[in-house]
Amino acid sequence: MIHAGIVGASGYGGAEVLRLLLRRNDVAVDAVTAASSAGLHVDALYPSFAGRTPLVLEELDPDRLAGLDVVFISLPSGEGMKAVRRLHGRVGKIIDLGGDFRLQSAALYQQYYKHEHVAPDLLRDAVYGLPELNHDRIVTANLLANPGCYPTGAILGLLPALVAGTVESEGIVVNAMSGTSGAGRSASVDMSFTEINENVRAYKLGVHQHIPEIESVLTEASGKSVRCSFVPHLIPISRGIYSTIHAKLSGSLSQEEALGLYRDYFASSPFVRVSTQTPQITTVSRTNYCDIGLFVQERTGQLIIMAVIDNLIKGAAGQAVQNMNLMFALSESLGLEP
Amino acid sequence: MIHAGIVGASGYGGAEVLRLLLRRNDVAVDAVTAASSAGLHVDALYPSFAGRTPLVLEELDPDRLAGLDVVFISLPSGEGMKAVRRLHGRVGKIIDLGGDFRLQSAALYQQYYKHEHVAPDLLRDAVYGLPELNHDRIVTANLLANPGCYPTGAILGLLPALVAGTVESEGIVVNAMSGTSGAGRSASVDMSFTEINENVRAYKLGVHQHIPEIESVLTEASGKSVRCSFVPHLIPISRGIYSTIHAKLSGSLSQEEALGLYRDYFASSPFVRVSTQTPQITTVSRTNYCDIGLFVQERTGQLIIMAVIDNLIKGAAGQAVQNMNLMFALSESLGLEP
Amino acid sequence: MIHAGIVGASGYGGAEVLRLLLRRNDVAVDAVTAASSAGLHVDALYPSFAGRTPLVLEELDPDRLAGLDVVFISLPSGEGMKAVRRLHGRVGKIIDLGGDFRLQSAALYQQYYKHEHVAPDLLRDAVYGLPELNHDRIVTANLLANPGCYPTGAILGLLPALVAGTVESEGIVVNAMSGTSGAGRSASVDMSFTEINENVRAYKLGVHQHIPEIESVLTEASGKSVRCSFVPHLIPISRGIYSTIHAKLSGSLSQEEALGLYRDYFASSPFVRVSTQTPQITTVSRTNYCDIGLFVQERTGQLIIMAVIDNLIKGAAGQAVQNMNLMFALSESLGLEP
Amino acid sequence: MIHAGIVGASGYGGAEVLRLLLRRNDVAVDAVTAASSAGLHVDALYPSFAGRTPLVLEELDPDRLAGLDVVFISLPSGEGMKAVRRLHGRVGKIIDLGGDFRLQSAALYQQYYKHEHVAPDLLRDAVYGLPELNHDRIVTANLLANPGCYPTGAILGLLPALVAGTVESEGIVVNAMSGTSGAGRSASVDMSFTEINENVRAYKLGVHQHIPEIESVLTEASGKSVRCSFVPHLIPISRGIYSTIHAKLSGSLSQEEALGLYRDYFASSPFVRVSTQTPQITTVSRTNYCDIGLFVQERTGQLIIMAVIDNLIKGAAGQAVQNMNLMFALSESLGLEP
Repeated sequence: MIHAGIVGASGYGGAEVLRLLLRRNDVAVDAVTAASSAGLHVDALYPSFAGRTPLVLEELDPDRLAGLDVVFISLPSGEGMKAVRRLHGRVGKIIDLGGDFRLQSAALYQQYYKHEHVAPDLLRDAVYGLPELNHDRIVTANLLANPGCYPTGAILGLLPALVAGTVESEGIVVNAMSGTSGAGRSASVDMSFTEINENVRAYKLGVHQHIPEIESVLTEASGKSVRCSFVPHLIPISRGIYSTIHAKLSGSLSQEEALGLYRDYFASSPFVRVSTQTPQITTVSRTNYCDIGLFVQERTGQLIIMAVIDNLIKGAAGQAVQNMNLMFALSESLGLEP
Repeated sequence: MIHAGIVGASGYGGAEVLRLLLRRNDVAVDAVTAASSAGLHVDALYPSFAGRTPLVLEELDPDRLAGLDVVFISLPSGEGMKAVRRLHGRVGKIIDLGGDFRLQSAALYQQYYKHEHVAPDLLRDAVYGLPELNHDRIVTANLLANPGCYPTGAILGLLPALVAGTVESEGIVVNAMSGTSGAGRSASVDMSFTEINENVRAYKLGVHQHIPEIESVLTEASGKSVRCSFVPHLIPISRGIYSTIHAKLSGSLSQEEALGLYRDYFASSPFVRVSTQTPQITTVSRTNYCDIGLFVQERTGQLIIMAVIDNLIKGAAGQAVQNMNLMFALSESLGLEP
Repeated sequence: MIHAGIVGASGYGGAEVLRLLLRRNDVAVDAVTAASSAGLHVDALYPSFAGRTPLVLEELDPDRLAGLDVVFISLPSGEGMKAVRRLHGRVGKIIDLGGDFRLQSAALYQQYYKHEHVAPDLLRDAVYGLPELNHDRIVTANLLANPGCYPTGAILGLLPALVAGTVESEGIVVNAMSGTSGAGRSASVDMSFTEINENVRAYKLGVHQHIPEIESVLTEASGKSVRCSFVPHLIPISRGIYSTIHAKLSGSLSQEEALGLYRDYFASSPFVRVSTQTPQITTVSRTNYCDIGLFVQERTGQLIIMAVIDNLIKGAAGQAVQNMNLMFALSESLGLEP
Repeated sequence: MIHAGIVGASGYGGAEVLRLLLRRNDVAVDAVTAASSAGLHVDALYPSFAGRTPLVLEELDPDRLAGLDVVFISLPSGEGMKAVRRLHGRVGKIIDLGGDFRLQSAALYQQYYKHEHVAPDLLRDAVYGLPELNHDRIVTANLLANPGCYPTGAILGLLPALVAGTVESEGIVVNAMSGTSGAGRSASVDMSFTEINENVRAYKLGVHQHIPEIESVLTEASGKSVRCSFVPHLIPISRGIYSTIHAKLSGSLSQEEALGLYRDYFASSPFVRVSTQTPQITTVSRTNYCDIGLFVQERTGQLIIMAVIDNLIKGAAGQAVQNMNLMFALSESLGLEP
């Protein structure tokens, strides 16, 4: 039995981790924390848990969590690293769903996240938890940085072509459309139904904190300096991210070759499916899949890649559980059936 | 030229009044107020006004508004009566879109609105601004209480049958489904897109402040003690209210007779359309219409009435402009073309 | 290993049965049929199945299905009974998700379904598959009529109060709001996104085929002649049904007594949760739960009951699997974790 | 009084033209046609017209329409040119909302529209009706090709920068997200609410008929060979198009310079608003505005342009009325108030 804790269970990401762990009989969730809701049963915030667990939200108390096999941290960026600092060395493994340990450079972190890093010494230990890229390092990781939702789709979509040198590493354009749950469970006029419904808006142009994550992971993986423009859009869906990517072909490439390249790359990845159809969000919704569609556009000399995920599953909680499975030598897809 | 002011132009209702008045060349909007946003151009809150008006939001200053022909007040209940108190006697006519002057009893007001009425002396002067019911009194009103959104649909749906005695005045069931703009422009987790989308929830059972409004207006109009159960539901649409009403038939009634009764009642009402089809919200969306569908259900001895409106137009700003038209002896439908 | 077949796997209901069965390692799906799509892989219709099953849709061939332990039938009403006729006696157990075997009277069937019943002799054998009502009969059933989506919510909401005589059996009003997946996977202007979005419409007033199902099941269960008005509304959500029910109290009843009555009634039902809060659809979405909220409205002498389900899970495929579990002596909730 | 006819009034575009013309007292709509619905009142298809017009849909009869001052044609591509052929020379002016006269090359037309052009002799006469580009030619046009919805946003977004040579004419990427009304009023599983809701999908990659329209208009206007990749996405909104465009800067450009360039270009265009904020669809919804947001991204050397319109208004009916205004020497914005 794996004994687990969830720090930050009042947000959508933490609640999804809880839902996925409650499905399992090889994992026991011993503690869930949420500073602002301490003392409440989890079903006070999420009535869907009614009758399914007696868990009560607690304050974060390292003594209370000490000795757990794994702790999932689902806190806002800036808060996550403080929790990691307090728990590091006292619990078996830490899976951080936030952004604090995804960049290896504390300076780059500060530039995009707008506050100083309080645990720069731990950045080196942290493993970027994209199983399709870092499988072997994840298996032995003690501190895992679960990828961001946008980066998960963008990186999976670009990896095979960039690693193979099929596309150029500069001039990449990533247009992404996201559901609103990615913004978290929060009160704001901008995120209200009336403002989001029947609407679209781009946001955080040029300053989104996922830009350096996408570029640095792809740069390290491909060995080339990857530069891309990333424009996120908020659209009226609750869940899902659709990323449409343009990259300039280095040479000629047939549709079949593109498909073969991607299928080979993901041959041992149970949650990535590749085709030459345009993917859809509903196909991956509430699942841990990333579906990728490829289109070689000869007229403009570009490879167009569409990648879709559920931002709360493959883009957060599902990928965290996938990583936990690897970190505990379990089947990668255990408990992640649609 | 009618000189108008809008107090509380930062909310959806006030902004819709502004949009409707900007269409007209017989009305000049001289001032718009919004305490929390004073100093901002209206297009800072509503970019849709960009390039269409130079109006800047101001603090409410009775000296500044004094002498205007008409002032629309679109403030939260409790705030509206304070503004009326300050403006009464200093401006030509006041149209209050809030709930503070809709009930003639200060005691009933306090019971449902949960605070004391600060201007009970003005309640007698206030005219309930449902043109289909109070046309003649509206024409001469100086203080007009614009009906609530839910009551507009429920009352129009029930009026002809109750006045004619076709249905019993007790045991009425009003189920209403509302779009989210009715909750105003506000920040809350409950009204966030992620919580509203793909969801329905009933709310305020038995305590909604529109219950006494519906019952008292219908009681006065019909001369019978009207009692109804009112259950509002929040559904994932931005605009519109669908009210499905059950009332017990007093005697036998054919579908044709029901239709005739309603068409006669609304013969001179340009914004009410009656049929034996089930109505739809999109048909009245962004318009000042109330569409009513009738179904005589012999099997259960009930008249089922469905009434639909756009909560921000016929349920608020449009009806306010309709009332202004009557109060200034203009064509009732001026400036309210779909 | 239970060997199963799904007849009519191209619709939403059949596809959900397939999804739920693919989760399990104690059930093997040996055949899926869909006349109009025979020869296609299931992922051609539902890309979400890509990589998860090699199943190819077939024509319905009784010889091919003969000997299966259980066959789920998810066909339009009128088609289901023909399939049952062909398979009856040749397969172990039949679970019909359509409406053909829910009414015990062939005459009543014809009145509401508008065509003659072709297997009236089998009506007596068919067991109405609402586990919370018919647990023991389901365990031994060979032909199971899975309840309709609307009736599931309405009946569960009314059962305890009607059986206990707490409410009167006449004058019941059921207002229901349904997502669009209940209408099936079909091409029509009326069901297009542009027509449904931002819209509400009531439909099939007085003639909906679920009216006799609700009334006859409740009449038989309570021993009183139950009569209710049922008004279904189509609202812009994909999944879920919200039923708001008004029933006249027979005597006085406190909120606590109502809660106790319902909790007692459903004490051994793992998928019904009762509270005095208003329920929400998202809480039960993608689950087999029915959440019930109770409100005793003294002012009008009514019990207001709100019941919510996911129309495709508790209202169709999930309940079918729940029934299968009972019919094969398995844990009632096996494979139905959220 | 301008006497107008609408050919194809059963679709969304034609119905919007009718709505906009019914607002006016200087235009009389004398005839509306719709082959498949001939004999029906327009309110049978669009209940929103109930009580507002006695118009009955007719078959298209050139003798009946002969002599009208203007005829709007809102038919599927391929049908429009047949109607133009029949009406040309018999009515005053023709405004075709379809795609048949937007490309000057019959060969290019056939390549993308997949059928032969039946009136290639009229292509030369047709004026491309983008008022912000072709104002003077529109004033004198007799056959006007109203722009496509996607091209309207993409072309307005790119025109100033391309004409000024601020961006390179190759390597342009246009990602567009569209509401569903752009697909017309039609019955298909793909366009059903259940399939569109909570979903996104790209479609028609590399073969969309708006590609040659965008490229040829921009090529002619800028004098450079413009090549762009265009990826349309269907998202769950009814109305609106959001186009996010990447173009490579030719040299250095400040945010202020970009803003100045665009504001100068559109100085006399009442319906284009430019800012350095990201635009939103709701801001232009139900209006004839095109809002443009500019972002100079130095890090990648690109100008990012976001352009939003309402596909049925500025992208169809509103622009058609704007063109009619110009063709009849009226104020460009007459009858197009929000």
